[in-house]
Amino acid sequence: LVKREVVKIVTPGTLTEGKTVDATSHHFIGAIHFEGEASYLAYVDLATGIAKCEVVHGTMEDVLHVADALQIRELVLAEQDDAFEKYAKDRHFLISFPTMDGEVKPSLVEALPKTAVEAATLIWRYLQETQKTSLDHIQPFEWIERAETLTIDANSMRNLELVRSIRNNSKEGTLYELLDVTTTAMGARKLKMWLHEPLANERLINERLDRVDALIEAYFTRDALKKELKSVYDLERLAGRIAMGSASGRDLAQLRDSLQHVPAITQLLRETEVPALTLLAEQLNPCVPLRTLLEEAIAQTPPISVKEEGTIRDGYDEQLDRLRDASRNGKTWLQQLEREEREKTGIKNLKIGYNRIFGYFIEVTRANATLMDEARYERKQTLANTERFITEELKEKEALILNAEEQSLELEYTLFTKVRSDSQAHIQEVQQLAHHLSELDVLVAFADLAERYHYVRPTFHEGRALTITNGRHPVVEQMMDAQLYVPNDCELTESSNMLLITGPNMSGKSTYMRQVALTIVMAQIGSYVPCDRAHLPITDQIFTRIGAADDLASGQSTFMMEMMESQYAITHASPRSLLLFDEIGRGTSTYDGMSLAQAMMEYIHDEIGANTLFSTHYHELTSLEQNLDQLRNVHVQATEQDGDVVFLHKVAPGAADRSYGIHVAKLAKLPESILTRAGELLTQFESETQSFEKISGE
Amino acid sequence: LVKREVVKIVTPGTLTEGKTVDATSHHFIGAIHFEGEASYLAYVDLATGIAKCEVVHGTMEDVLHVADALQIRELVLAEQDDAFEKYAKDRHFLISFPTMDGEVKPSLVEALPKTAVEAATLIWRYLQETQKTSLDHIQPFEWIERAETLTIDANSMRNLELVRSIRNNSKEGTLYELLDVTTTAMGARKLKMWLHEPLANERLINERLDRVDALIEAYFTRDALKKELKSVYDLERLAGRIAMGSASGRDLAQLRDSLQHVPAITQLLRETEVPALTLLAEQLNPCVPLRTLLEEAIAQTPPISVKEEGTIRDGYDEQLDRLRDASRNGKTWLQQLEREEREKTGIKNLKIGYNRIFGYFIEVTRANATLMDEARYERKQTLANTERFITEELKEKEALILNAEEQSLELEYTLFTKVRSDSQAHIQEVQQLAHHLSELDVLVAFADLAERYHYVRPTFHEGRALTITNGRHPVVEQMMDAQLYVPNDCELTESSNMLLITGPNMSGKSTYMRQVALTIVMAQIGSYVPCDRAHLPITDQIFTRIGAADDLASGQSTFMMEMMESQYAITHASPRSLLLFDEIGRGTSTYDGMSLAQAMMEYIHDEIGANTLFSTHYHELTSLEQNLDQLRNVHVQATEQDGDVVFLHKVAPGAADRSYGIHVAKLAKLPESILTRAGELLTQFESETQSFEKISGE
Repeated sequence: LVKREVVKIVTPGTLTEGKTVDATSHHFIGAIHFEGEASYLAYVDLATGIAKCEVVHGTMEDVLHVADALQIRELVLAEQDDAFEKYAKDRHFLISFPTMDGEVKPSLVEALPKTAVEAATLIWRYLQETQKTSLDHIQPFEWIERAETLTIDANSMRNLELVRSIRNNSKEGTLYELLDVTTTAMGARKLKMWLHEPLANERLINERLDRVDALIEAYFTRDALKKELKSVYDLERLAGRIAMGSASGRDLAQLRDSLQHVPAITQLLRETEVPALTLLAEQLNPCVPLRTLLEEAIAQTPPISVKEEGTIRDGYDEQLDRLRDASRNGKTWLQQLEREEREKTGIKNLKIGYNRIFGYFIEVTRANATLMDEARYERKQTLANTERFITEELKEKEALILNAEEQSLELEYTLFTKVRSDSQAHIQEVQQLAHHLSELDVLVAFADLAERYHYVRPTFHEGRALTITNGRHPVVEQMMDAQLYVPNDCELTESSNMLLITGPNMSGKSTYMRQVALTIVMAQIGSYVPCDRAHLPITDQIFTRIGAADDLASGQSTFMMEMMESQYAITHASPRSLLLFDEIGRGTSTYDGMSLAQAMMEYIHDEIGANTLFSTHYHELTSLEQNLDQLRNVHVQATEQDGDVVFLHKVAPGAADRSYGIHVAKLAKLPESILTRAGELLTQFESETQSFEKISGE
Repeated sequence: LVKREVVKIVTPGTLTEGKTVDATSHHFIGAIHFEGEASYLAYVDLATGIAKCEVVHGTMEDVLHVADALQIRELVLAEQDDAFEKYAKDRHFLISFPTMDGEVKPSLVEALPKTAVEAATLIWRYLQETQKTSLDHIQPFEWIERAETLTIDANSMRNLELVRSIRNNSKEGTLYELLDVTTTAMGARKLKMWLHEPLANERLINERLDRVDALIEAYFTRDALKKELKSVYDLERLAGRIAMGSASGRDLAQLRDSLQHVPAITQLLRETEVPALTLLAEQLNPCVPLRTLLEEAIAQTPPISVKEEGTIRDGYDEQLDRLRDASRNGKTWLQQLEREEREKTGIKNLKIGYNRIFGYFIEVTRANATLMDEARYERKQTLANTERFITEELKEKEALILNAEEQSLELEYTLFTKVRSDSQAHIQEVQQLAHHLSELDVLVAFADLAERYHYVRPTFHEGRALTITNGRHPVVEQMMDAQLYVPNDCELTESSNMLLITGPNMSGKSTYMRQVALTIVMAQIGSYVPCDRAHLPITDQIFTRIGAADDLASGQSTFMMEMMESQYAITHASPRSLLLFDEIGRGTSTYDGMSLAQAMMEYIHDEIGANTLFSTHYHELTSLEQNLDQLRNVHVQATEQDGDVVFLHKVAPGAADRSYGIHVAKLAKLPESILTRAGELLTQFESETQSFEKISGE
């Protein structure tokens, strides 16, 4: 019986391989430490070693919102906390507890405030306990200052379709899919991370934009950089596998091949002579000692299995070379033997073969078997058409060949594990390099996109005014014929930063609202933006309340969800935030829906002052423009042609003058008599209202 | 080089194995033959051989609606048809064309009208072409008369969550998940098929209900039947694998084991002495010749691989027995030898071993190696701690053992393929048996459910009146505490068969509407129903228009979808249909939404006369009761307690007197000042309306 030990405990948060782990995503496990009103959230991607920590001020719901936005599925806690556990489990989080003690390495938590170290320690203990292996590749925890980033809650990430689609939670049709023209898996992950945490610091944003700028200019360099990046493997995951002792010979060869491309990348960046890029060139560490080790030790194309021969390069180890010679010479000897035996026996199709039962044998067809001298050839096996023989000479050589093979395999494995453990000393350098290369990869992608889709560089200022000229929805634009897409301006000023948007359904109100938010997100991750000109404030948070599916199973109606999302937005927004409210109140009956929508607009106007786009189907609300200083009416234009409605998709000042529901019904081919009758009823309702308005206006 | 032929072409519609093929679902491929206004749709589940055909009168959209409801993904056409192809591809169907000629076997299409045979021929050609194997298991095409079934279009299947949930398209929270307490995969598939095609023939429904009745009474028999069914494998798929020549020894053993349980099942049914069940007993064919063949030929537990030894039973073939003896004796001889060699050498831990390099060898520890007489024992290999030797005697016996093994494997495989091809003659009997057993399985499940959840037997009549007393939503009921669930009546009469439902959001309007539809579906598949009493019409079609998610990517807004679903319902409904319209007009602005809702209600009332449940948030529409004879107002009750809203979930006569949107906003914890202000605004709007109503009423 083989003694078995538990070598590793796999939990949902600590998976690093397998079909549920997408190479282009980080896969975080989180730990929470509560300290009064503050919740410290530390999280680690075990495959790449990336580690971060931040603080969330607020309720249990708030911290879970953040975890959810990061797609964390497993959370580690210090101790039983029934209320929190139930709350988190209802939201499909898995809760785990470490049972071991132990302190996190001090070098990993230097960037963290003291109170945050607890969270890092928690996750460290849990990983120690489950992984039972080196955690040398875990990088120092990065301290995320939310003041430095644009916060987008999980609902809004979803409503804006940043990384996952509303429809089926896939990347299809998302901003991420559009922007992901990165070359490496590291780059794809970095981009996704940036979409989760856009910057909110003008200097840092402009640093990225400067680089994009320079890369757009340097067309040929960019092309050459992509060619080099194509040959760079997933350094972060390779580093992870080396640290955890699961790297194969092929992994080490991939690491070596990747490192060989670094000097060319550095050179390309240097040659631009643009400071934004030459600075980056200096940050790329070529990892020379590691590269040299791997070049000397690892074969050109090692097999996948570390137990097969061919991982170690010829010439690296003298003894190994000797054993290999013996085995190779043996094989030459066999070829020689085949030739000799053919001559001796005169049998042209005589062959030397090998099978697991007899080892090496001499095979001849049955017809020729009589030519074999029984004194010399020992008959071993009779098959349908052939006979197999051995000779003493053959068996002696066989023992030598197989023995050498066995010993050589054993030695090779020993040498390989030594190289692998020696490589561990260089993991941090590799991770640093990976960090810089993946940033470069994303910035190259941004430059490509800017060029391909005619994006422009956004500019920023300290106020809250926002100007987007001829803005487009980057994803919708690509799904349509470019000629057909209608660009739209958006203008929010210091004295008028709320828009009330009316217009027929299907005319593009939601698309318009989303494109403003997407432009801000793109600008704050350092990308060019889809418009002719963008002069933007630095936004601290984006909140959206945009129609979503009923959550039937959990018993929450659309309207309850609508109110909960609105509540979250209203209680968390600041004057520097962007609010998108689409059709608030639609989920309830006419009058209380209208009352709530108006009350919320007034509240945002008087109490918050955030930049706000508010769309509504209550045309009655357009009169609010007269009472709320900051509010302006705009509408999406539509016109009639031959009795059909034609959507112009153009946003214009003022309120829409009528609604087009009945025309949509006509497009859907409802029976003529229904359309006629609805038309009559509409005229009747409208005339009644006018008289009603006149009366109440008196 | 091995000569490779194309042995099979796998397309999405013809997959029979693998992780995308769920054993509890049919996986149909369809073919369409157009004949004027009529489209003939034939479809086959290749894994089980089930084949059906029906005619759809209407547009391309109508036939795709039917295909979609059957979850068909691949459609075969006779010839290029650009318009249809584009239309189908936009809806994610794959379109294929057969390139071969050939006629479908006449015995398969006896039940089909002449014009339908074309469709069956099409699919037959395509399967011939792709499968390149026997299609003997394809069953005769069943002709589906839609007049005999309750038609539920794809949208409504989805809205009612019959087999897939709205939320994530899984079976979680569906009626199917609730009802599927079947024992076999065949039963689960049969149940799903029944949910796709409930009956619309009172006699056939009552036949099923009579059997459920009898099974409820016979508690112990039912329990015993389940035990037997648990031992029945998936006969339909086994038959399919036999026909296609991909059955393994284990498959044949499973078939044999399954057949062995048929006599017990027959006996159990007979003993009840209830005609509904004894009749079924007579239909169960014990397949004696096939069972005998398999009992004689196949080993108790064959290995999975047909190339391994042990598939054929000892005693079935004399030559095989002889070869097996040789190999087994050889092994006994080896054990004997080990004992002898230990005695001869005096080495207690001497062992006989085998490896792929030297074959059998004698192993002793290194310390004992000196005890081995070099004249007798030839040294073969030196390992770290042991030495390995062979003797001439050992090598001779080895040749015999390994030779016998090889020949025995070869013979066994030949025998096995013979048994498998002999089994093909019995495929149709097995399929018939599978059909009856799976029905029994579902009916047993219905009896279990009726007992467990206190369902009652529905009764039917020829009119359209509908009475459900204390009805429950079967799925929601199970997710809640039984004490908390509030049952509700539904009463539609000949003179009043339309309900207009008002009431606050989250109060359960949608649940109420759905439970009426689910009760009808359950009744018409032959199940007992969740209520105290149900007296029902035979419904021919169910249409629903219930809120769904925006289909952003395809650019269709909620409202366009709403209108398209309404249009489909209104143009296809008959006086015997059930219509569920939830919050029509919600997707557009107030007045034209209201106009459309009213015009549709009037149209359904005057032109269609179908049983209709119509919920609305336009309280203004409740006055329609005065003009439309068949229409009655009902509302879902709510009350206030300490300033909070309490939903009573009870449907009562009359219109709701006010709406509770602001209370929901309060539950969602919106800031107090917004709630107060919205309350003021609501009072104001309401008083204005009252004066408006007074004025317009004058």
